Amino acid sequence: MKTLKEYASLTQTRLSQLIPSLPENAFEPGEMPALLAESMRYSLLAGGKRLRPAMLLAACEMLGGEIEPALDYACAIEMIHTYSLIHDDLPGMDDDDMRRGRPTNHVVFGVGQAILAGDGLLNMAFEVMLKSALKAGSNIEKCVRAAGEIARGAGVTGMIAGQCADLYQEGREDGTEEMLKFIHEGKTMAMFVGAMRAGACLAGADEKALNAVTEYARAFGLLFQASDDVLDIIADPALFGHSVGKDERDGKLTAVSVLTLEGAKARVETLLKEAVCALEGFGAEADFFRSLADAVAHRDH
Amino acid sequence: MKTLKEYASLTQTRLSQLIPSLPENAFEPGEMPALLAESMRYSLLAGGKRLRPAMLLAACEMLGGEIEPALDYACAIEMIHTYSLIHDDLPGMDDDDMRRGRPTNHVVFGVGQAILAGDGLLNMAFEVMLKSALKAGSNIEKCVRAAGEIARGAGVTGMIAGQCADLYQEGREDGTEEMLKFIHEGKTMAMFVGAMRAGACLAGADEKALNAVTEYARAFGLLFQASDDVLDIIADPALFGHSVGKDERDGKLTAVSVLTLEGAKARVETLLKEAVCALEGFGAEADFFRSLADAVAHRDH
Repeated sequence: MKTLKEYASLTQTRLSQLIPSLPENAFEPGEMPALLAESMRYSLLAGGKRLRPAMLLAACEMLGGEIEPALDYACAIEMIHTYSLIHDDLPGMDDDDMRRGRPTNHVVFGVGQAILAGDGLLNMAFEVMLKSALKAGSNIEKCVRAAGEIARGAGVTGMIAGQCADLYQEGREDGTEEMLKFIHEGKTMAMFVGAMRAGACLAGADEKALNAVTEYARAFGLLFQASDDVLDIIADPALFGHSVGKDERDGKLTAVSVLTLEGAKARVETLLKEAVCALEGFGAEADFFRSLADAVAHRDH
Repeated sequence: MKTLKEYASLTQTRLSQLIPSLPENAFEPGEMPALLAESMRYSLLAGGKRLRPAMLLAACEMLGGEIEPALDYACAIEMIHTYSLIHDDLPGMDDDDMRRGRPTNHVVFGVGQAILAGDGLLNMAFEVMLKSALKAGSNIEKCVRAAGEIARGAGVTGMIAGQCADLYQEGREDGTEEMLKFIHEGKTMAMFVGAMRAGACLAGADEKALNAVTEYARAFGLLFQASDDVLDIIADPALFGHSVGKDERDGKLTAVSVLTLEGAKARVETLLKEAVCALEGFGAEADFFRSLADAVAHRDH
């Protein structure tokens, strides 16, 4: 098992190879336009913890799989995560000008190109996974399962469902705890579940192991979002990377707006216990995930 | 072999099953939000000739494959085509209010939900193909190849590359014939090539047959776009479904702006000959494609 930084670094290297930097203004037949590559790289390589790819890779390794053939899937999930941020920041969505301390994609490249950069990353995620599956020989079915898990997590019953509900709910006064749950499960949890199940599929995990990683990822995803909602209220803006108090100004339904700040903090602790509990059947090989949940629950940015 | 209408009707039925209509305002855990389903259905089931799915199915049948297992792939390509129209119509892209005689998606559902409807359709296309591949047993590799062809046609070296170049070029005065070729090959041709190669892959076609359908699809795609550019100038608006003369007003680089109207018409005839020529090795089983190219070259809407 590796550290979060080691998994992140492996992912970063492969991502940079998958979308190379191209000569300015080049439109070469059959190639990616330089402008498109630049706009995708701008957001994809802007930093970020590479949490989802790391969890995919760590789940795969924990269950006896190999890192090298899983790297394309790790990159695919980061491409999908990045596309969702680009589209989420657009006017008509959250309309954010800053992300990770830099101007958002549409501020730099314009709305049209930002839409295309997002579309490009989403499509490319699948192109990369399908290519990888064709090279996998007898492991092709494991690869298709993994890609299917990522598609489900990212899709219309997963992340996009959550985005749709979030947008529907914004500024409405009738937010319920059920709606909050729907939004958090979709927007945040579904992709963590997809990442870990994909890693487990690539490792050829059995049903029992798949269920365990799913339980962990569910608790972890909700924990991650609840702690994010808490940080939006209490974080130091210099550390947090995006503006503090924005959810409240936007009239967003959050763990804090539904449960109060103290209630949301308590929820984080409950979810941390659930996440750790889901790993009961594993030994030291699951320590990566135990530390990760603890670190996310107690982070200050 | 079936007619275009028969292929279209099979596709329409399956599409409607894949995205069912849901009770209003429902946000049920683990399900597609009703609002999202409605916005996707609005554009997906709005009519249209279902040309790309029909060509996928016809290529598959022509080369000895079966229709039933290819239907999910036909639907996937129509989902991708529809997502590209929704995003293309957005403010920041072409900013169109009308499509197929009805208000565009963002006019009805708002910009944010329209972005999500597009994202949802693109993601769902892959979800549907991956699910289908897992059910295909020993045909899984053919399915992955087919999905890969669609991903490539839709992707950053295909359709999205063309969109990027089109947007970059809009309003610029320095349009060249090379740039026009890049835009048309990307925006229009790549998806026809992807559709026919996917159909051929599903049929288990050999390299020779794959090359022949690729040649046909290349000529057909360019023919389709050139005739579209001609129609934008000379069509009867009542028949054409969208506004006439819009390309010129938007300062778009088109076959007509580069080659003149007469030049563009001559180009259509040359491409028609090339398309028919690519089918030389086939007998009556390729008549569907011969008639189709002729019909598109000589259409009035």
